[in-house]
Parts: sequence; structure tokens; C-alpha cells
Amino acid sequence: MIGVQLPTPSLVIDRAALDHNIATIGEALPGRRLRPHVKAFKSTGLARRLFDAGHRTFTCATVREAEGLAAAGLGEDLLLANEIVDPDQLARLAAIEPAVTAAADSEETIDRAAAAGVRRLVIDVNVGLPRCGCSPDEAGRLADRARAAGMDVRGVMGYEGHLMMVSDRASRIRKVERSMAMLLAAADAVGGDLVSAGGTGTYDTNTWANEIQAGTFLLGDTQYDSLDLPFQLALTLECSVLSVNPAGWLVVNAGLKALGMDHGNPTWPHGEVMFCSDEHTTLRCEDLSVWSVGDRTHLYPAHLDPTVAKHERMWLVDGEEVIDEFAVDLRHW
Amino acid sequence: MIGVQLPTPSLVIDRAALDHNIATIGEALPGRRLRPHVKAFKSTGLARRLFDAGHRTFTCATVREAEGLAAAGLGEDLLLANEIVDPDQLARLAAIEPAVTAAADSEETIDRAAAAGVRRLVIDVNVGLPRCGCSPDEAGRLADRARAAGMDVRGVMGYEGHLMMVSDRASRIRKVERSMAMLLAAADAVGGDLVSAGGTGTYDTNTWANEIQAGTFLLGDTQYDSLDLPFQLALTLECSVLSVNPAGWLVVNAGLKALGMDHGNPTWPHGEVMFCSDEHTTLRCEDLSVWSVGDRTHLYPAHLDPTVAKHERMWLVDGEEVIDEFAVDLRHW
Repeated sequence: MIGVQLPTPSLVIDRAALDHNIATIGEALPGRRLRPHVKAFKSTGLARRLFDAGHRTFTCATVREAEGLAAAGLGEDLLLANEIVDPDQLARLAAIEPAVTAAADSEETIDRAAAAGVRRLVIDVNVGLPRCGCSPDEAGRLADRARAAGMDVRGVMGYEGHLMMVSDRASRIRKVERSMAMLLAAADAVGGDLVSAGGTGTYDTNTWANEIQAGTFLLGDTQYDSLDLPFQLALTLECSVLSVNPAGWLVVNAGLKALGMDHGNPTWPHGEVMFCSDEHTTLRCEDLSVWSVGDRTHLYPAHLDPTVAKHERMWLVDGEEVIDEFAVDLRHW
Repeated sequence: MIGVQLPTPSLVIDRAALDHNIATIGEALPGRRLRPHVKAFKSTGLARRLFDAGHRTFTCATVREAEGLAAAGLGEDLLLANEIVDPDQLARLAAIEPAVTAAADSEETIDRAAAAGVRRLVIDVNVGLPRCGCSPDEAGRLADRARAAGMDVRGVMGYEGHLMMVSDRASRIRKVERSMAMLLAAADAVGGDLVSAGGTGTYDTNTWANEIQAGTFLLGDTQYDSLDLPFQLALTLECSVLSVNPAGWLVVNAGLKALGMDHGNPTWPHGEVMFCSDEHTTLRCEDLSVWSVGDRTHLYPAHLDPTVAKHERMWLVDGEEVIDEFAVDLRHW
């Protein structure tokens, strides 16, 4: 429990942990070796901290993220690491200055991007995760098509998302190598400078890509915290105790509207999470008598990205003191 | 697939289904017999549809919802069916005119509400769900304490949330009766007019409460649709096909940031949902050849409330035509 009277529920970032995470990733992946993925934290204020630490290129998942970064003066080299097919979104993407590098994995996505005036592209290659990405042997042909349409093809990207949670490090290294062999084959066929891949789970085991698209390292979540990574959990959800029931539980004022739930319940360091409702989480612990209505406590979210996207702002705290506020200004599409 | 070119992902409401749901609940629970719970749809525009259908009292879960309804002229009788302990939120609650009826389940929550200037209260009674609510035999004593502090105690509320998904109707009726016996015992001790309870799952089996706090009936979700209720699924998530992979899947541009996931994956009527990522859902079906990049398709969310809370707006459609837009203007706290 901390003493600051933030509104509840509120996302709270620990300054020391944030600083540790930025320093740790910067030692492993200085400057452009890291292309931070803003989808994890959706805040230009936090992106600026990374920019100030020397990481001036960013990865985005949505047009809104790219627009927001550009408007904040952080758009000198943005990669929108996703296919865009919506006509209105393509027009917005093409209007951003400096030109954003988009991703394409098919003739249709290239043709739509070209028709909308998108000027920079990477070829998105499937490296084992069943999601977007062409097969490696199609990548060269797609690059030719994009260049014939006048586009600057900067290289390739591929996301080994299926390998982020491989818990054994040696196994992770072997699997990432096989996955990246596909990307490197495509890179040979495509040309250009960029070989963009990776995430927090493989930030130091993916030594084949020349830039890593990690984002979760910055704030963390309980799932990534189960890996052997040197990052600290910086983000918690501060909430207030609403009810202490002598039958054996207490209730706090944060639930499904404040937590990304696809990785399961949050973690409560003082006991067990029974279940989450829209605006409540019911908790139980050995000694209820230490809890009173109005007490503050903290939950650790299971999945960072969708948790942050539910909030309007996050607060930076140093011990008991609230020292900064970050608007979650890159939400929606 | 429909022809309108909404941005994607977008929440889409079918007009005929919405009208059906409003008419159906209105026949069972006319006027004040229904106190619609706005937490399910978080939109003053949709609340106004219910107001115009004769339901002029509303249930809220947050101070923000109560503020928004009052500002929209829909606040003549609001019940904030939740304990509020945050000092700033209590001050905001007390400032709303006309006075909102708050809930309390302990001496502490009564004292905090009274000190903040909250004037109307119900006693929140635990009727079997391990969440907020006092035991029935404490309710009278708490009502006395609130009245001694000058508050208008309007009655009791209790939410039989643990019974919403009892699939056998006869069993649901028996269990609701036992649950409501606790609430009615408390109501006798508390006095006042309100016996407020229920939800969509028990809207017609809870015949003991004198007002029902249902909200999901309005738009629906796949979990409630599994029950024997007469409401229609009115809400879908429109998305665009980004990628069709001949290896056996297609990918659409809506995922964890657009869907409440605590009840599991959404449903896709044309095949199977493999998994959701932040901005993607990977789908598979028997015949991939009917799908092309740029096609529109729709996912059915598993849980309405946290899905809606992820969006800025919803669109009302009548066949191919977009006829209205509802801002999701009651989000956050």
C-alpha cells in the first residue's frame, strides 16, 4: 500500500523499475537496434523517454499510433508492422510526414498501399506464427511488385510471436534461429536494409534480425515475468478496498474494465484472486483482519498491452510521490 | 458481409435486433420495473432509447456513468449500484443533481458517503455472490446508521450474479427464490420502497425484486445467447480480412484491443477462431477460397460489457445502411 491518493483504479508505474528497464534494454540493443513497439504502452510520453534514451525509431500496430507519434515529433522513422486495408486508414497513413514504412504480405495489400500513396514498405514474412506474413519464397516477387509500383522497399519483417514464451533459453535460441533462417532467406530475395523482428521474449536471443520490435520490456506483465528476463515489473493497478466480508473475502474496485484478461486473472501479492467482475475483483487471503474499507492495494496485470489500452492515463510514482502523468494517447484505430 | 464502409474494427448494432430487445424487455418489465444497467453499453445515446421507451430510471456502476447520464438529462432517478470509497469520486457523486442513490454495505461505506454529502442510499445485501453486500441480518442496523446520519434510505439491492448462467430454467427459478428470500428479509428490516436486483439472466425469473437491473439484454453476447432468453444478438464487431494464407487460415484486423476476452474467444459464424492477438484474430474455415483481402466479416463478442468499453463509438445499421452513431461516452471512472 502506498500513501498517494490517486483516483482508483489507476495504472501506476514505478520510476526505478522503468529506469532499470530502459537502461537494461539500451545496453543490449542501443539506438536503432531497438525499434520500440508502442502498442504495448500506447503513450507518446513513454515513447519520448525511449527517444531520449537514443531509440528514435518506433514500431506501431495501428494508424492511430503512427499519427500520434508523428504529431508528437517522434515520427522520424516509423514502421507500421501490420497490413492496412481499410481505405480511410490507408489514406490517413499515406498523409503522415515523414512517410511511414508500412507492411504488406500479398499482392492485394501492396496494390492497395500503392494506390493510396504509401511510399515505403517492408515485406511481412511468415516465420512460423499463424498470422499475417507471406511465405519466404514469395517475398522477392512481392518486393518486385512494390518497386514496380514506385515504392521504396526497405527490407523485411517477421514476428516470431509463437516463440516468446518458450521457457527454456537454449530451446528458445534454437527455435528462433530456425525461424529467423526463413526471414533471412526472404531478406536476401527482397534486398533493402531492414531485417525487423523480435519481441521482449526474444530481445537477446534473436541475434539475426538487425532491429528488435520489443515493447513489453518497458512496463512488464506477469506472463513475461515468468521468463528468465532481466526486466522488472514496473506497472501495477492501484485499487481501493470496497468491502471486507468476514465470510472470507475482500473486494477491490477494479475488474474487467481495467484489466486485459486474455492471459487470465491478475496477480495479488497478498493472497489469491477469486474472480474478476466488471468493476470488482474478489480476493482472499489468510488474515482478513489486516484489511479495512478504503485501504489501497495493487494488482499485477497478466497481459500488459490490452490492460493499458483500457485506461486514459498512467501515473509515474517514486515511492510515495506521484511525479508524472502519461496520457494513454495512442488508443483506438 | 455488409456493404457499408465503416472503419474497421467497428462495433455494429443491428437496428431490428435492438428494437426487438427493447420491445421484449418492455413487455416483461414496463417502465420502472426495469432499471436498465448502463454498464453493459456505456452510452447515453442508447440509454435515451430506453428512456424514450418508458424506462426513466437507470443503474450505474461508476461515478462517471452517473455524471454522464445526469449531464445528458437522463438522471432523474439514478442508482449507483456499487460502493464508492475514493474521496474524489465521493465528492463528484455528491455533486450530481438530482441526488444519486448510492449503495453501502458497511459502517465505513455509510460513514464515508454521509461525510461526503451523499443523501440517498440503498443497503447492498449479499444474496450469494461472493462480492460486495452485507449479510441480511446486518441490513437493518446499517439502515438505522444511515438514517441517523440524515440520509434517505430508499430500500435494498442485491445482485444474484452467480445465478445468471444457470441453464435450466426451473433450477434457476428455485435458486433465485432462495437468493431473493435473503433480500426480502433485509428489505423488511430496512424499509423504503426499493427492492432492486436481477440482471438479464434472471429478468423474468426474479419476480421478487420490484425492479430489475438488466443491461446485457439490449445488445447481447454469445454467453447470454446460450441461455433460453428471447433476446437477439444485436452487436457484432465488423472487421476486415488482412491476409488469407493458403496454409489454412485467414487473419482479420480486430483482436484483444477490441474484444472483452474474459469469457473466451469471440464466435465467427463462418468457421473457427484459432486465436486472438492484440490487433488480429486468426480464423480457419473449410473453404478459404471464398475469402479475399479487404472482405468484411463479423465477430460475435463473448462478453458484451468489457467489449463495448474498449470502443469510442458504436454504429447502428439497418441492412446495408448506417443510420446512427452512438458515442461510448460513459467509459472510465
